[in-house]
Amino acid sequence: MYSKIKKRTHEIISSAAAGDKISKAVDLFFIVLIMLNVVIVVADTFALPAAVRRIMSVVETISVIIFTIEYVIRLWVSVLDFPALSPVRARIKYVLSLQAIIDLVSLLPFYLPFLFPVNLIVLRVFRIFRLMRLFKVNRYTKALSSIAEVFKRKAHQLISSMLVVFMLMVIASVLMYNVEHDVQPEVFDNALSGLWWAVATLTTVGYGDIYPMTAAGRILSAIIALLGIGMVAVPTGIISAGFSEQIEKAEKSDDEKVFCPYCGNKIK
Amino acid sequence: MYSKIKKRTHEIISSAAAGDKISKAVDLFFIVLIMLNVVIVVADTFALPAAVRRIMSVVETISVIIFTIEYVIRLWVSVLDFPALSPVRARIKYVLSLQAIIDLVSLLPFYLPFLFPVNLIVLRVFRIFRLMRLFKVNRYTKALSSIAEVFKRKAHQLISSMLVVFMLMVIASVLMYNVEHDVQPEVFDNALSGLWWAVATLTTVGYGDIYPMTAAGRILSAIIALLGIGMVAVPTGIISAGFSEQIEKAEKSDDEKVFCPYCGNKIK
Amino acid sequence: MYSKIKKRTHEIISSAAAGDKISKAVDLFFIVLIMLNVVIVVADTFALPAAVRRIMSVVETISVIIFTIEYVIRLWVSVLDFPALSPVRARIKYVLSLQAIIDLVSLLPFYLPFLFPVNLIVLRVFRIFRLMRLFKVNRYTKALSSIAEVFKRKAHQLISSMLVVFMLMVIASVLMYNVEHDVQPEVFDNALSGLWWAVATLTTVGYGDIYPMTAAGRILSAIIALLGIGMVAVPTGIISAGFSEQIEKAEKSDDEKVFCPYCGNKIK
Amino acid sequence: MYSKIKKRTHEIISSAAAGDKISKAVDLFFIVLIMLNVVIVVADTFALPAAVRRIMSVVETISVIIFTIEYVIRLWVSVLDFPALSPVRARIKYVLSLQAIIDLVSLLPFYLPFLFPVNLIVLRVFRIFRLMRLFKVNRYTKALSSIAEVFKRKAHQLISSMLVVFMLMVIASVLMYNVEHDVQPEVFDNALSGLWWAVATLTTVGYGDIYPMTAAGRILSAIIALLGIGMVAVPTGIISAGFSEQIEKAEKSDDEKVFCPYCGNKIK
Repeated sequence: MYSKIKKRTHEIISSAAAGDKISKAVDLFFIVLIMLNVVIVVADTFALPAAVRRIMSVVETISVIIFTIEYVIRLWVSVLDFPALSPVRARIKYVLSLQAIIDLVSLLPFYLPFLFPVNLIVLRVFRIFRLMRLFKVNRYTKALSSIAEVFKRKAHQLISSMLVVFMLMVIASVLMYNVEHDVQPEVFDNALSGLWWAVATLTTVGYGDIYPMTAAGRILSAIIALLGIGMVAVPTGIISAGFSEQIEKAEKSDDEKVFCPYCGNKIK
Repeated sequence: MYSKIKKRTHEIISSAAAGDKISKAVDLFFIVLIMLNVVIVVADTFALPAAVRRIMSVVETISVIIFTIEYVIRLWVSVLDFPALSPVRARIKYVLSLQAIIDLVSLLPFYLPFLFPVNLIVLRVFRIFRLMRLFKVNRYTKALSSIAEVFKRKAHQLISSMLVVFMLMVIASVLMYNVEHDVQPEVFDNALSGLWWAVATLTTVGYGDIYPMTAAGRILSAIIALLGIGMVAVPTGIISAGFSEQIEKAEKSDDEKVFCPYCGNKIK
Repeated sequence: MYSKIKKRTHEIISSAAAGDKISKAVDLFFIVLIMLNVVIVVADTFALPAAVRRIMSVVETISVIIFTIEYVIRLWVSVLDFPALSPVRARIKYVLSLQAIIDLVSLLPFYLPFLFPVNLIVLRVFRIFRLMRLFKVNRYTKALSSIAEVFKRKAHQLISSMLVVFMLMVIASVLMYNVEHDVQPEVFDNALSGLWWAVATLTTVGYGDIYPMTAAGRILSAIIALLGIGMVAVPTGIISAGFSEQIEKAEKSDDEKVFCPYCGNKIK
Repeated sequence: MYSKIKKRTHEIISSAAAGDKISKAVDLFFIVLIMLNVVIVVADTFALPAAVRRIMSVVETISVIIFTIEYVIRLWVSVLDFPALSPVRARIKYVLSLQAIIDLVSLLPFYLPFLFPVNLIVLRVFRIFRLMRLFKVNRYTKALSSIAEVFKRKAHQLISSMLVVFMLMVIASVLMYNVEHDVQPEVFDNALSGLWWAVATLTTVGYGDIYPMTAAGRILSAIIALLGIGMVAVPTGIISAGFSEQIEKAEKSDDEKVFCPYCGNKIK
């Protein structure tokens, strides 16, 4: 079968079993390293003395090397994640997983700067997503997956309502451009500016960089802003009902469990 | 009865049955055509070279001709939608349906520019609504109609709360005008400006083009902004409860179904 | 007992019974009159020719006379609203009702301008609230009272959460003043400006007339803005649960109704 | 056991029993005193004549003395709160309670100004939190604790969703800085400005002091603003479901109560 080292490595890397101190230490090390990397990405945008920059650069180079080694090790042990598949297929499946793609995206711009325009180095900020992999604490994983479940179950309703909203946004943006262009040719310079206004209004952000000045524009804006209320209310209602449904289903399945009246063990 | 061609045309136009490849191809063609039209409407607001404009104009003219043919065909086969009615009544009913009106609104300004002020050409953007007709995929239609059902069932509550909000808005706008007019005569120039402020505040958009400066105005604004919270909370609560009710009803009707204990068929 | 005229007047004024055409006509007359008054109040803030102003003034004077007569009639027939009380007590009770107070508030500034500062004439806008009394349509009254019921049942939870929010707002406003005063002495001129900022931020209106510029102020603002999310979420959650509860109670009481198996009449 | 005076003091200070007039009087006195203190803290930020300032200063000094005495008395009687613990442990437990820490924080800057930078005097505003301790009215305490219970039960879901939001915010801020820095170097001067923008956008506050101007920035902003809708919808959904669950559990436990059919007393 698999070598003992491979198995142990897989154990350490995948999910810390209770009492597995080495696995926990590795996790902690990676959490600190990722956070350090995020801090460096943020700090990098400040005017800092050259000495600090040099240290940051060294830390990041070391990090990239460590993350690369981790990537290779994960690739190596990924056959244990999919024991039913052949080693090659298992590894291809791993490489195409969301986690592995994010890892690659946050590493590649470092290795292949000649392939990317300079500012793609910014993609290293995606390293923060690695943190999610490390939050192996059971209760948070459960909570997150229950939220994800609600979104999945309500996906059709959420997508359909988003579709209607998008249509309204396109219509509103074109109408708004026509209404406001003559009065504010600089602000509403084309229909995409209208779309930018529609997003800012429907989401009730309202930066104030773009807003109607004509009477017709204000009436249109009032309608869109009121629809914005609906835009919050509908998905919230869908999601609320989804969470309520989830709780009730969990309770029902609790009620339906049958226990043996003699031994007390669960039968069904 | 009806001719075979009429029946087949109706099939192709109305809803793609599983496996009906011609119907699907026609659907796809129209989705692409509508999207192309929407892109043209948006692109039309940009400064483009004359050559591009000419191409866009040609594409649109062809589109309008196709949409007109489609309109006539739909009118022709609409007798199959309402088999109980006489052909004339069926067609009148079709012409007065929301879909047909939107179609006409997005076509007429093209044919009768002498009847409309120039910028009504913008109404062609309503063509985007045709997309809805083409999303015949069952699950999205279901999701959308379940959302519509919640709105219909809760219409009285939603309308009453909107009515109260509207009264508050009118009162707030007149009060605000009285409070702020002396300090900002340019901004709060009449009660309608106050209404514009009330909408921006109640919906929490807050562009920042109009806001109170006096102490009394700020107190009034704070009250209205806090009511804005309620304006989100009440419809959201109504809609949430509506979705929950819908789910429970669906479950109940599942529970109440009676199956024959011998053959397993549904009895009730 | 009461005179026939009094009874009939009470019928006409209070609630239109099905088929009572005179009562409906009176209702319609008042709806039009009130709306006309609201339009006048709004139009009054525009620069209008003197002729129009004179007409508006005449209409308003007539309206005030009609509303005054209505007030007296309502006072006269109010003994029929509270048949258990003595006529004097019934009338005092009527005068102190919310409806009667709003009526008086919207009439008095017209009669006693020497008692009020000039701009209290603005209180006539409260006449719009009379519209509510006239929406006697059963289904909307039901819907509104069901919304009011949810607010009443959840009053303690809503008030407590508002209390906590108010405390946070006071604390935030004083802290913000201390943090920002030195940098923007004009904008954050005292703690009340801080309170104005706190309201704009917590309700997510964000006009943009007042916002932090220091790092500490931005951190504080971020915390308050995030709490603002909670400020929407908590009352919405409370109200949602209230509406769900209401629906379930209505269903339960339906389930508990017992009908006679012989005659089909409701027993319980 | 404990002296009678200690017991009586504890009674007066902790929670007003029905009919305990002295306890109620003490409560009222403290409510007035705290509110007076809050008014002074706010008034302190205005330009006031020296005479008024002197009075305010005197009132505050007296207040601090009274609050200090109260603190010592509470410390003295705290052994009655934890009768199972030894006096020393009971007092240490009290000192480390949230209430006692807030009390100390709002008192210490007055006694030890030489220990704190001047503007920490602002911490006295935390005295407003003492009001909560005095709202001993049963129904509000119940309402607040039911809200707190929902938050506690849903903590994992709320925290996980906040964590995801925080990650998105960090990523958005770094991306936004990279996209906008070249066009608006003054506004987006570093990634923390990007974070400030992300908070303002996600919470839909949108002051308007910082917003994207490039096409890429606007697209990113639109995505973040739409996620902001989700940021309201998800916690609202979680909290709504929590409140619904709470109501149902309360009803269920009502249903499960068993009463003796003979005597009518509660059995279970």
